[in-house]
Amino acid sequence: MKYDKNNIFAKILRDDLPSERVYEDQYTLAIMDIMPRTKGHVLVIPKAPIRNMLDATPKYLLCCITTVKKVGQALIKTFNADGLTVQQFNETAGGQVIFHLHYHVLPRYKDKELTPYPSEVANISTIKENAKKIRAVLDQ
Amino acid sequence: MKYDKNNIFAKILRDDLPSERVYEDQYTLAIMDIMPRTKGHVLVIPKAPIRNMLDATPKYLLCCITTVKKVGQALIKTFNADGLTVQQFNETAGGQVIFHLHYHVLPRYKDKELTPYPSEVANISTIKENAKKIRAVLDQ
Repeated sequence: MKYDKNNIFAKILRDDLPSERVYEDQYTLAIMDIMPRTKGHVLVIPKAPIRNMLDATPKYLLCCITTVKKVGQALIKTFNADGLTVQQFNETAGGQVIFHLHYHVLPRYKDKELTPYPSEVANISTIKENAKKIRAVLDQ
Repeated sequence: MKYDKNNIFAKILRDDLPSERVYEDQYTLAIMDIMPRTKGHVLVIPKAPIRNMLDATPKYLLCCITTVKKVGQALIKTFNADGLTVQQFNETAGGQVIFHLHYHVLPRYKDKELTPYPSEVANISTIKENAKKIRAVLDQ
């Protein structure tokens, strides 16, 4: 399948769109989901034009999953979360909405069900505040 | 967190419990989920005592995600699926029920929502039939 270089994450990678970055290395970037399904919902994306897992190279699969683990551990520490859910969607029927590979990293809390996507963007100052806390843990 | 060597997947790896294997290599095993949420629901597990992603080494993360991709592509081909959803749960609050790292690989079909887990084990002959089809595609 074709890669559309004007998808939202491609624009974020080019800095054509703003994002709240919590972590990055040479191959991956982790940003806050601005429509969080749980407190601290982060997205991990590769810094390469990859549509989804089905066209990802082993190098990028490893880099992404390593960042998912690193960020996931930081999320648990930051928010004192009780668990973590990782989701990755491929193609529309698979739940994909933005066609650049991304992993949802969702800190989970005891007795709290995973809610559907909210219909509106969350309070940006809360997102920024959470991002700051995550970066502080990652910088330790 | 501790690894319980009597969890279901550890028993399957030791052949103390039966399973319907669709793929395996030195480091990973892919088996049919006997309570499938979609037609062709497969689980990918490492051949090592790993509780979940939080204690997985980079080597096993890469091996698992590589098998997830390989099996995922085969599932799409086998069932002419329209997409693929990958889920991975960590700790009880994160949705984990069996405490051995596993990736859910769910072929998805147009206009079909992901159903909750069924309350009963599926028809085993259907599971075996689907597994046979997947193996045939992987053997090509």
